[in-house]
Amino acid sequence: MYFGSDNQTGASSQVLNMLTEANNDYTHGYGDDRWTHQAIDALKTLFECDLDAYFVATGTAANSLALSCMVQPWESILCHDSAHIILDESTAPEMFTGGARMVPISKGEGKINPVQLNQYVQKTGTDYPHNVRPAALSITQASESGLVYTPTEVAALSAAAKANGLSVHMDGARFANAVASQQCAPAELSWKAGVDVLCLGATKCGALSAEVVIFFNKDLAHTFTHRRKRSGHLLSKGRLFGAQMVGWLQDDHWLELAQHANNQAAKLAKAIASIDGLTLAWPVESNELFVIMPKGLAEYLQAAGAEFYDWYESTLPANITLGEDEMFARLVTSFVSQDSQREAFCGHIYAYFAAQ
Amino acid sequence: MYFGSDNQTGASSQVLNMLTEANNDYTHGYGDDRWTHQAIDALKTLFECDLDAYFVATGTAANSLALSCMVQPWESILCHDSAHIILDESTAPEMFTGGARMVPISKGEGKINPVQLNQYVQKTGTDYPHNVRPAALSITQASESGLVYTPTEVAALSAAAKANGLSVHMDGARFANAVASQQCAPAELSWKAGVDVLCLGATKCGALSAEVVIFFNKDLAHTFTHRRKRSGHLLSKGRLFGAQMVGWLQDDHWLELAQHANNQAAKLAKAIASIDGLTLAWPVESNELFVIMPKGLAEYLQAAGAEFYDWYESTLPANITLGEDEMFARLVTSFVSQDSQREAFCGHIYAYFAAQ
Amino acid sequence: MYFGSDNQTGASSQVLNMLTEANNDYTHGYGDDRWTHQAIDALKTLFECDLDAYFVATGTAANSLALSCMVQPWESILCHDSAHIILDESTAPEMFTGGARMVPISKGEGKINPVQLNQYVQKTGTDYPHNVRPAALSITQASESGLVYTPTEVAALSAAAKANGLSVHMDGARFANAVASQQCAPAELSWKAGVDVLCLGATKCGALSAEVVIFFNKDLAHTFTHRRKRSGHLLSKGRLFGAQMVGWLQDDHWLELAQHANNQAAKLAKAIASIDGLTLAWPVESNELFVIMPKGLAEYLQAAGAEFYDWYESTLPANITLGEDEMFARLVTSFVSQDSQREAFCGHIYAYFAAQ
Amino acid sequence: MYFGSDNQTGASSQVLNMLTEANNDYTHGYGDDRWTHQAIDALKTLFECDLDAYFVATGTAANSLALSCMVQPWESILCHDSAHIILDESTAPEMFTGGARMVPISKGEGKINPVQLNQYVQKTGTDYPHNVRPAALSITQASESGLVYTPTEVAALSAAAKANGLSVHMDGARFANAVASQQCAPAELSWKAGVDVLCLGATKCGALSAEVVIFFNKDLAHTFTHRRKRSGHLLSKGRLFGAQMVGWLQDDHWLELAQHANNQAAKLAKAIASIDGLTLAWPVESNELFVIMPKGLAEYLQAAGAEFYDWYESTLPANITLGEDEMFARLVTSFVSQDSQREAFCGHIYAYFAAQ
Repeated sequence: MYFGSDNQTGASSQVLNMLTEANNDYTHGYGDDRWTHQAIDALKTLFECDLDAYFVATGTAANSLALSCMVQPWESILCHDSAHIILDESTAPEMFTGGARMVPISKGEGKINPVQLNQYVQKTGTDYPHNVRPAALSITQASESGLVYTPTEVAALSAAAKANGLSVHMDGARFANAVASQQCAPAELSWKAGVDVLCLGATKCGALSAEVVIFFNKDLAHTFTHRRKRSGHLLSKGRLFGAQMVGWLQDDHWLELAQHANNQAAKLAKAIASIDGLTLAWPVESNELFVIMPKGLAEYLQAAGAEFYDWYESTLPANITLGEDEMFARLVTSFVSQDSQREAFCGHIYAYFAAQ
Repeated sequence: MYFGSDNQTGASSQVLNMLTEANNDYTHGYGDDRWTHQAIDALKTLFECDLDAYFVATGTAANSLALSCMVQPWESILCHDSAHIILDESTAPEMFTGGARMVPISKGEGKINPVQLNQYVQKTGTDYPHNVRPAALSITQASESGLVYTPTEVAALSAAAKANGLSVHMDGARFANAVASQQCAPAELSWKAGVDVLCLGATKCGALSAEVVIFFNKDLAHTFTHRRKRSGHLLSKGRLFGAQMVGWLQDDHWLELAQHANNQAAKLAKAIASIDGLTLAWPVESNELFVIMPKGLAEYLQAAGAEFYDWYESTLPANITLGEDEMFARLVTSFVSQDSQREAFCGHIYAYFAAQ
Repeated sequence: MYFGSDNQTGASSQVLNMLTEANNDYTHGYGDDRWTHQAIDALKTLFECDLDAYFVATGTAANSLALSCMVQPWESILCHDSAHIILDESTAPEMFTGGARMVPISKGEGKINPVQLNQYVQKTGTDYPHNVRPAALSITQASESGLVYTPTEVAALSAAAKANGLSVHMDGARFANAVASQQCAPAELSWKAGVDVLCLGATKCGALSAEVVIFFNKDLAHTFTHRRKRSGHLLSKGRLFGAQMVGWLQDDHWLELAQHANNQAAKLAKAIASIDGLTLAWPVESNELFVIMPKGLAEYLQAAGAEFYDWYESTLPANITLGEDEMFARLVTSFVSQDSQREAFCGHIYAYFAAQ
Repeated sequence: MYFGSDNQTGASSQVLNMLTEANNDYTHGYGDDRWTHQAIDALKTLFECDLDAYFVATGTAANSLALSCMVQPWESILCHDSAHIILDESTAPEMFTGGARMVPISKGEGKINPVQLNQYVQKTGTDYPHNVRPAALSITQASESGLVYTPTEVAALSAAAKANGLSVHMDGARFANAVASQQCAPAELSWKAGVDVLCLGATKCGALSAEVVIFFNKDLAHTFTHRRKRSGHLLSKGRLFGAQMVGWLQDDHWLELAQHANNQAAKLAKAIASIDGLTLAWPVESNELFVIMPKGLAEYLQAAGAEFYDWYESTLPANITLGEDEMFARLVTSFVSQDSQREAFCGHIYAYFAAQ
C-alpha cells in the first residue's frame, strides 16, 4: 500500500535494461555519447520539432536551471501558490537565478488561469528599477493538485504571458501523466501551446534519475551549459541519463507507464468516491489523489502499513476548510501500483468504518 | 506644492551645518572618527541601552544588510505585501541574503497583525530542507500606508514572531514620524517591544543621506562589517554619516522635524476630509496621505505644478475598489512643508470642483 | 586505446549488479532507504570512525558543497594552481559559497606544501573587512599531476592550515587510487592526518555516478542538507547512489579497481620511460601519466584511434618548458584498461619513431 | 603629518560650497535633478564624447558594479595582484558579479603589461564550460604602486585585451592624479586608449563621497540601473553626488587639487631620496610614496604623531626583499597637504638618524 510518492519505486525493466546495455563500451564523457545523442533525437521526433535538450539528475535542478535562463536577478517568476518550485524546492530558484523573486499569483483553485495573471500584472508597479518586473510564468503539468491543463488552457496562459512580456516555463515532472490523461500529442501540450521551456521528468514515471530541460525557444538556451556545469549538474558519465531516456521513450513505453499509474489512480478515486466519510478535494485527472479523511482513519491506515503524505493545508480548494478531526492526505499511484494494493487499502478503510 | 516624496528636499540647516563643521580637520577613515563615535553614543543615549550601530547611505542598503544578518539563504522573510522591501527595493533582499525568499503575509489592511503571522506559519510546511522556513519578520514603522504601530502592537507582533522562531526587523525609514506621532520613547517602540534590528532613517526627515542599522540584539551583528564592506557600503570618509547623525539627533532636532511634517500632514488631511469627492484611504497618522480622487482633478493639480505619486492600486484597503475615473494618490509632507503650499494646493482643488 | 579519462567507462559489474538488485522493492525517497543507510555504515567501518556522509552525483557538486560549508562569502579557499576546483569546475566554488574567493598558492610542483601555505598567509593582509581571510585549504588526493600525498605530508599540511585558522578539504576524486598506491588505511590519509571534509569519488573508479561528501568534522556539516537541496542535488530515488556505493565498497572492490588502474599506469609508465623522445613530466604514482611527446607522434597516435588529452601547459613542472614541436599529453588508465590496449598504444609509438 | 590616506580629509571648499548651494530647493529624487544632470554634462565636455554616467558612494561599489556589467558569473576578471579590487575590497567583485573569478596575472612590477596578459590567456584552458574564460581586464590609474600608465601603455593593454575578447575596466580612484601627472587630456587616458568603463573617483581628491561609473562603451551599460538599485546604491537625494561632482569639475578644480597632492608627493620624494637609510620602492609619479625604512624609524615617527600605513609586503618590487628590521611604508599626500607637514616629518627623520 505504497501511495507515498512516485519516487518510492525504482526504474522500469525497460529503462534499467537500457542502462545495463549502455554500461559496456567506451564513450566520451559529459554527454558526448551515443546514448545521449540518441535520446535527444528521440525527443525531437516525439515533439515533432527542433529543440535543445539537456539532462540533469533532479527536477529541482531542471526547473531552477531552466528558470535561470529566463529571468534576470531583478525580475520575478509567477506561479501557482502550490507550485513545487515555491513549496518544495527550498530556495533553489533564488540560488540559480542569482536572486530573482518567486511570486505566487493563484490560490484556492488547482490551476492557474489567465485572469489571475492579468490582474497581477496590471496591479504591479512598473517604476523600474524600483519595482520587480515579472519575466516568466511557470505552470505545472499535471498540476500539484493532480489536475491537467488542456492544450487550450496552456495556450491561453501562454498568450496572456507573452502579451505581458513573460516567457513560459512548464514543470513537467508529471508531463507523461498529463499526456496520457488527455491522449494528445506532446507538441500540442507544449510548444504549440506557447511553452518556451519544458522540464520533462522521467524520474517519477519509470526512471531512476533522468530529467531533461527542453528549450523549444532556443534563444533562451545559450547560457545553459555554463549554468549546468557551474551548478555541478554536468555528469561525466552522461550515458546514465541518455540510456534511461532512450529506454523510457522507446515504443511509447513512457506513456504506458503513465497510463498505468493514471488508471490505478482512477480506480482508487472511484472506490474512494463511493465511501461515505471520504472526500476527494480535487477531481482525479492524473496519478495523484487528494483525500479528506478522518484523522482516526489516517492513523489506522498508517498503522496497517499504508504510506501516504499529510498534505499542505494551504493547498486546499478555497471552498473547503479542514475540520479539527480531519486530515488532508495525498495519495500517489505509480507505474508499479497493483490492483491488490488498492484492494487491500480499501479493505482497511471499510474495516475502519465498519468498526465505528 | 511638493508632496511627491520626503526625498525631494535637502538637509535641514542644523544637519548641514554639522556636516560643514565636520569637514575640516583630519580624521581616520572608515568610520573611525569622532563624528561617527559621537553619533553612536547619541544613539545609545536616545535608546537607553547598549547597541551596535552601523551607517550606510540608503534605506535599501540598511534593510537588506540587516536582513542578511537575520536569515539563511534557504529561509524566508515575512512582511506586509505593501512593504517597501518587497515593493520598492528591486530584489535587493534576495541579493544581500544570498537568495532568501520574500513572503508577503498581509494584505488589505495597512498594518500586519499577529493573527496573519500565526496563520501563515501554521499552514506552512516544515519538512526541511524541502520547505522554506520563515526566519524573520519585517515591519515598517510608520507603515507604508502611513499608519503607526503602537508599542503594544509591536510587542504583540514580536511575541508571535519569537514564539515561531523568527527574529524581528523594523524598517524605520519614518521611525521619527512614528515616534513624533505617538510621543513615546524610542525604546518603547523598538527593543522594549521586541525589535532585534532597527533600520533608522534620517534621510527622509532632514538628512541628505544617513541611515543607521541598529542591532539591539548584538548576537545578530557579528557578520555585519563584512557584509557592509563587500557590498560597497563602507564609506571611506565616515564623517559624512556621523556628522549628519550628530546634527540630526542633537537637541531633539529629529523629532521637531518629524513633528513638523506630521503636523502638515494632519492639516492637509483635515482639509481633504472636508471636501466632497475626495476620500482618505487610510487614517493619517504620520506624514503620508493616501487620497482617492477623480482622475480629472489629479491631472488638473499636476498641470498646476503639484507633485504627488500615482500609488500602487494593490495597496488599497480591502474594502475599496478604485473606480475607472479615480486615481489613488500618495501625498507626502516633509520638514520643509509650508502652510502656503497646502493652501495653494487646496485652492486648486476648490477651483477644480467649482468648475465642474 | 582509451586513455582519455577515467570517466569514459561505465560501472563495474559488481556496482551495476548492486544497482540492479536495489531497483526492485519500495523504499522511502530522498536517501531514507536501506541502501543509503548501508552505504553510510560501510563508510564508518571503512574509515574507523563516526562521520556524516551525503551523496551527490558529481565531483563538482561534492567539492563545491563541501567548501560552502567551510568558508564565508568574504573568505578565501587556498589550493594548488592545477587544482580541479580552480581549473575544471567553472566558477562552481564561487556559486556555492556565495562568492568566496579561489586563491592558487602553489605552482610548478605537483603538490602543495606547508611552506607555500605559510608564506601566503604571512604576506596576506589581515585588515578585515578590507582583506580577504583564507579559511580553507583544499588538497587533491591523488593530485592533479598524478602524485600522492603521504599521510605525513597530509598531516603537515593540515597542521599548517590549522595553525593559521584554516580547515582542510580533500578532493578525493581519485582517493581510491591514492590509497591503493600507498597501501595505507583510509583513515591514515584522511581524518587521522587532519582532513575535516573528504569528497570521496567512486565515479572515476567503478561507479556510474556516485560521490560522497564525508564530514569527519561534523561541526561543519550542519547546513549541508539545506545546501544540497537548494542546489538541486538531493535525489528523490536515493538508492541510485546508495546501491552503487554499497557495491563499490563491498569486499574491497573499490581498492581492487583502483589497484588495477594503478598497475596499468605503472606498466605504461615503464614502457614510456624506456622510449627515447618521450618524457614523463611527473613520477607516476596513481593512474595518470603526463607525457611530453612530439606533436607529430600525438597526431599519429590520435589518427590511429588513441584517446588522450592535450593538457594544460600551465601545469608543467617549473623546470620544463614545452618546445614548439612538443605536446603535453595526459593519459589516464582505468579499472577496465587492458594490457592489449597498452601494447597496441606502444606499438604505434615504436612504429612512429621507426619511421622518422 | 597625516600621510595615512587621501581619505583622511574632508571635501575642498569649492566642493562643499556647491553641496551647500544645492541643499536648498525641491528637486526630484533618484538622480533626476539639475545637479546630477549638470554633472553628467560636465563629464561629457571633459571627456569630449557621449557617455553614460552613474554615481555611487564608494569606489568599491563603482568598481564592482562596473565589472558586473562586463562579465558573466562563469567568466573571470584579470588584474594586477596589487589591485585594489583584489586586495582591499573584500570579495565585493564576486558578490556583484554573481560569482565571477578574480585572477591576478601580474606581480613584482608596479604595472601590468600586455606580455603578461597574452601569456596568461595563451596558457589558459578553453574547454568551456569546464574552464573559466577571461572576459575583462582591470587596470588602475594611477596604479596601486603610485605609477601612472601613459596613453600609449593603456592603448597597448586595451589592444591586447580586445584581441583576446576582453573588455577594459579602469579603476580611476586616482585618475585625477594620473591626468595631472601627465598633463594629458582625460580622453587620451581613457576611451581613446580603448577603456570601455572608467570608475572616476572624486572622493580621494576633494569630495566627501562621489564616484562615477562612466561607460564610454554604452552597450555595456544597459543593466546598470537595475544593478545599482538592487545593491542599495541608488541614492534618493541624488543631488548629494551631483553637486559635489559639479563643484569638483568646475574650472579645472579637480586637476588643481590633484596637482597639489602630486607636487607635495614629489617634494617629499625628493627629500626622502636624499636621506641615507631610506629607499623609495617605486618611482613617485602621483601622490603615493612607498618607502622602505628602519622599523625603529617608523615607530619613532608614529610616536611623534605621523600617520602612514605598514603596507603589503606582497606588493614589493620583485627585486626587493624586506629585511627583518625594515618596514615597508606607504605615504599618501592629498589636496590639503602642507609644506609644513612635510618639513616636520623630515625633521623627525633627521633627528632619528642623528641620534643613532
